[in-house]
Parts: sequence; C-alpha cells; structure tokens
Amino acid sequence: MKARITVTLKNGVLDPQGKAIEHALSGLGFDGVGQVRQGKVFDIELTGTDKTKAETDLKAMCDKLLANTVIENYSVAIG
Amino acid sequence: MKARITVTLKNGVLDPQGKAIEHALSGLGFDGVGQVRQGKVFDIELTGTDKTKAETDLKAMCDKLLANTVIENYSVAIG
Repeated sequence: MKARITVTLKNGVLDPQGKAIEHALSGLGFDGVGQVRQGKVFDIELTGTDKTKAETDLKAMCDKLLANTVIENYSVAIG
Repeated sequence: MKARITVTLKNGVLDPQGKAIEHALSGLGFDGVGQVRQGKVFDIELTGTDKTKAETDLKAMCDKLLANTVIENYSVAIG
C-alpha cells in the first residue's frame, strides 16, 4: 500500500524560503505570481493491507516525527 | 488561482533523507514501513485566470527553478 503525507506550514507562520522563491520567480520574469509557500511531501510504502490501521499509523507518524504540529499542518492520502 | 507543484526524486536516485526517516520510524516502533522517499511541495498563488497559460508558466517555473529535472520529477495541479 502506498501513502503520501503532505506537510505544509500553517497560515500566519513566516516562510522565508517561500519568499525567496517568490523573488526568484519574479526575477526570472514570471508575472502574476502571488504568495509562494513551500512544504514537504513523504511517499511511504506500507506492507500491511488494513487501510484504517494504516491511516491511524500515518497520523501517529506525523504527530511524532514528520510534522511539527505547532507550526505545520499535515494531510494523509492513501492509495 | 491556486496551484500546487509536487517535486519528487526520480526512481533510482538515492534518498538518504528518506532512508533516515525509515530508520527513525522503525526505531519509534512503527512496523510495516517499507521505502520512504521525501519530496517538496510548492503552493503558489497566481493572479491570472487563464488556466492554460498558468499551466505553461508553472511548467516553465519547474524547469527553470523549482526542480532539478536531471534527478527530479514534478507534477502540477491547478485549482
């Protein structure tokens, strides 16, 4: 079973990396680019077949290791 | 208009960060975790309304700045 976890910064949290990309894009001549925010994505292969257990496990992984829930949101997609 | 660009490593490209996460997860007691690979995600706000132009622009942004197409794949989702 394959799963994808997406971790993004919460609204209101400063994202200097995103700001740098914004400036770089406008420097390259791309007009009409508003806010840019960068996040992380984790592609995880799971050996089990139980989707409910997998979702519980993946959320626990996010809470314990993959995301800093003080400043980041995460979403889990299975399949 | 909002767009999300996902950049992932191509198959066969070593991902030491993903390997480290694999080991950390099994150290935390998560069983049944196979391969883990880490990628990046960019959430971009665009001011225009032309979807076709937006897609062309976003692909150009990936080719020029956001992805290293020698070792990375990217996908663009608008909306």
